[in-house]
Amino acid sequence: MPSEFELIARHFQRPARSADLGVGDDAALVRVSAGNQLVVSTDMLVEGTHFLAGADPRQLGWKTIAVSVSDLAAMAAQPRWATLAISLPDDDDAWLAAFADGVFACCASFDVELVGGDTTRGPRNLCATLFGEVPAGQAVTRAGARPGDDIWISGQPGRAALALTDLLGGQGLAAACRQDFVEALHGPRPRLALGIALRGLASAMLDVSDGLLGDLAHILERSQVGARLFDRLLPLQALIEGGVGEEHARRALLGGGDDYELLFCAAPSLRGRISGLAEAVCTPLHRVGTVLAEAGRLELEVGDGACRPLAPIGFRHFTGERDDY
Amino acid sequence: MPSEFELIARHFQRPARSADLGVGDDAALVRVSAGNQLVVSTDMLVEGTHFLAGADPRQLGWKTIAVSVSDLAAMAAQPRWATLAISLPDDDDAWLAAFADGVFACCASFDVELVGGDTTRGPRNLCATLFGEVPAGQAVTRAGARPGDDIWISGQPGRAALALTDLLGGQGLAAACRQDFVEALHGPRPRLALGIALRGLASAMLDVSDGLLGDLAHILERSQVGARLFDRLLPLQALIEGGVGEEHARRALLGGGDDYELLFCAAPSLRGRISGLAEAVCTPLHRVGTVLAEAGRLELEVGDGACRPLAPIGFRHFTGERDDY
Repeated sequence: MPSEFELIARHFQRPARSADLGVGDDAALVRVSAGNQLVVSTDMLVEGTHFLAGADPRQLGWKTIAVSVSDLAAMAAQPRWATLAISLPDDDDAWLAAFADGVFACCASFDVELVGGDTTRGPRNLCATLFGEVPAGQAVTRAGARPGDDIWISGQPGRAALALTDLLGGQGLAAACRQDFVEALHGPRPRLALGIALRGLASAMLDVSDGLLGDLAHILERSQVGARLFDRLLPLQALIEGGVGEEHARRALLGGGDDYELLFCAAPSLRGRISGLAEAVCTPLHRVGTVLAEAGRLELEVGDGACRPLAPIGFRHFTGERDDY
Repeated sequence: MPSEFELIARHFQRPARSADLGVGDDAALVRVSAGNQLVVSTDMLVEGTHFLAGADPRQLGWKTIAVSVSDLAAMAAQPRWATLAISLPDDDDAWLAAFADGVFACCASFDVELVGGDTTRGPRNLCATLFGEVPAGQAVTRAGARPGDDIWISGQPGRAALALTDLLGGQGLAAACRQDFVEALHGPRPRLALGIALRGLASAMLDVSDGLLGDLAHILERSQVGARLFDRLLPLQALIEGGVGEEHARRALLGGGDDYELLFCAAPSLRGRISGLAEAVCTPLHRVGTVLAEAGRLELEVGDGACRPLAPIGFRHFTGERDDY
């Protein structure tokens, strides 16, 4: 049986690229470029909470890195390095090889270098810390939304939630869409190019991990504003084509987590530039609402112009959903 | 029942000190001082592997931060920021309050600012990532030991292992020493002042988490050298006073983990300066061996000058011991 050090060497130790010192010492050494801020985010994925026992290890490896890349994207930052701490119930070499494959595939996709970590015995738990750079002062936080700003969402939120329901034996998905939706759940593609392109344009931004409304509520709270969403602008059609009814689609779109799309605010004067961006980074963007001056107000404008209040249905009471701080 | 966001706000959210942006966004923003390298280490503590169910939460909070502070100390680096990802089986407010107390007490002791994290549901798992700084080129790695260098160990390794044996119902400790030994296990004091003072003096260094011999083997491997330890120089007396026999004490000293003492090499010409350091940082230092030219050779010189080979008894086969990479 290989020792833990052999496992590390076999699966996680690769020559340092940009790091001054990578895997294999007490700590890693890297250099942050002059004029840049260091940006740091950590995420923990737990078996039984964030993924099911028996989940595909390569997909897990990908997702373990991807969810933190998404956090950096939401700050308009470039990820550069990662550490990875994992707890495993056994030393299944094939599992580790596939997991490492997924980790390095995601790292390669987003130009991230794995520089250190920790491997230990215990219930399966995967914790990545990503750190990167952003030119000083150019990070986009949750706090800058202004009344009158448009509210935008990237891609197609709601797919991951519908895929999960399908996988758990609930409402099934149409065969033509199933693969796409499941891919959104298991292999999320962080919107990094979009996040970086929004430097200087977005007034506030975050990635949707806990559901559009729940995450929007964070922007409202930090920015001390309210929001009105327009039902006619919600991208429900692709979800409905997945085989669910309109109300089910709306609920998945507004409340479903795990899509890692970017939700951001921007001045209406920037609509043209933002639409141009969508093409440049090959990412559909949907303008779905407007920022209100009244702090904490959250409403949906329906067909006839009437508004009904929205509860932040993405909020969960310590249910094991991701909740970064 | 408070939501996870309320729990975070209550226990982990404090005003940013040196960070440009701390807890509460997708990622934290900090600045690395010009001319410094960023130093990063991550450690995961798992219930049932690194601590027992029912362990004191305040001590756990302290130790979660301390073990990574120790890694940075072993690089001669100054810790500055931390992220903390935790998985908990329930939202026991009193547990969290005590745990956070321990975290912040350790952070305060070593001038570390908690800048972000993740809280989720699952088997108890505590993962800290520490970020710090070292003037470029002054980090001490595991790779610089040279034949003829002295081998030094700080403080009193072996106490944590003997305390654990005692707590698990094995060989009991003398009443007069018990408290001290248990404190070494539950509340390790990283040798940060010592580590930083050894910049420019130590040729190689690491912290002893897996046992003196096992960790020394890492230095030997990285530095491509061997080592001879001198039995007469091993600080066994304090362990024997703990109530164990000499051979038991030797085994705890050479093989016991979790003490977080610093093991380092330095040229014999520096003996005077290093002894002076010991006083300056109020840390006993023991010169216990010498570096040999023959790579991988590891031996103990006993009474009459004879040498017997030592197996690296700190090595464990994926037993759940800490194994940083």
